[in-house]
Amino acid sequence: MNKSTLISMAVVRRLPKYYRYLAELLRRDIDRISSKELSEKIGFTASQIRQDLNNFGDFGQQGYGYNVKELHREISKILGLYKEYNTVVVGAGNLGQAIANYSGFSKQGFNLKGIFDKNPKLIGIKINDIEIKDIDMLPEFIDNNSIDIGILCLPRNSAQEVANVLVEKGVKGIWNFAPADIVVPEEIAVENVHLSESLMVLSYRLNETNLLNENK
Amino acid sequence: MNKSTLISMAVVRRLPKYYRYLAELLRRDIDRISSKELSEKIGFTASQIRQDLNNFGDFGQQGYGYNVKELHREISKILGLYKEYNTVVVGAGNLGQAIANYSGFSKQGFNLKGIFDKNPKLIGIKINDIEIKDIDMLPEFIDNNSIDIGILCLPRNSAQEVANVLVEKGVKGIWNFAPADIVVPEEIAVENVHLSESLMVLSYRLNETNLLNENK
Repeated sequence: MNKSTLISMAVVRRLPKYYRYLAELLRRDIDRISSKELSEKIGFTASQIRQDLNNFGDFGQQGYGYNVKELHREISKILGLYKEYNTVVVGAGNLGQAIANYSGFSKQGFNLKGIFDKNPKLIGIKINDIEIKDIDMLPEFIDNNSIDIGILCLPRNSAQEVANVLVEKGVKGIWNFAPADIVVPEEIAVENVHLSESLMVLSYRLNETNLLNENK
Repeated sequence: MNKSTLISMAVVRRLPKYYRYLAELLRRDIDRISSKELSEKIGFTASQIRQDLNNFGDFGQQGYGYNVKELHREISKILGLYKEYNTVVVGAGNLGQAIANYSGFSKQGFNLKGIFDKNPKLIGIKINDIEIKDIDMLPEFIDNNSIDIGILCLPRNSAQEVANVLVEKGVKGIWNFAPADIVVPEEIAVENVHLSESLMVLSYRLNETNLLNENK
């Protein structure tokens, strides 16, 4: 397992894609796949794939391909997908409610334990069978429910303040949807999903396509 | 403007972060900022920042810093943020509804024109003042409303089919939240937001932290 600590984040960010395709192959009862076939499906080069997968074991056999089941299992292990995490959603606006409602996360071992907001109109409403609680109750809730991950679905200006509370209370990871970069100690894992940044990139690419067409 | 077509996607993906910080500085009435100060705020190195910003003009002055307003304006232009786009959300589950409800996008010039689903229980419900329509009406709606962008909030197995319809009807970009990689012609801009992949990366990092601690 030690080896996995040496994998670069660039490789780590490609692993979910491998994982997703291998799961698809498993559903279709496919036992073996060559790096060439994988390459055609995933869009990475075969050499990139061999290099990536060499990082964490010897799964391919020359001329025989990868064992789909083993590789799927190993990637699950590296990604920590066999583990279970207790999570809270902070911010129960539309996005927070959508995240709280999304059942796919519990399949990945992310168990939603609480939802918090400061808006009195939202407190008491049930989302996915969980009652939205007053954000003032968050610190005590974390203490009593071994919360591992905080999911921030807050506006820009309150994200850091809540992140501080989460860190102080011993949360290990933050999934941040707030359009702000939060500052936390190095040992806390933060994964940002900046939707408006993603939309800006899409906007750039639409614009770029137009520019290219204008120049033709 | 031609120059912007030469910017690498790695730089483009950093631009929204610059844009966000410059907007923050504008709100605080700050006119000038050095690459060193920008570096402390954004977390990129000063040399990276100078290199990035050199890509599209000469905004910095030695010993004087960047003109915040000009730089903000130029980045807006490159990202196409002064343009307006007509969008549709396809898939009106929790995530689709959250996206449809998110007012921030219209501030960025993304105007939601329609929401579609195939579930009869959802058709007719109003989200953000827009009635959810039957997905069978999507092709005609695109024809009549000059839709530029389709936002896919669908399950894995229906994403490609709907993407095909969008492309056939002349949509220029797709913002894809479906946990699937859709295949479209090269000239169509696709921006993926794979939430479950993001969660897997967070899971990896939590796991990695544990591994590192175990090895101490």
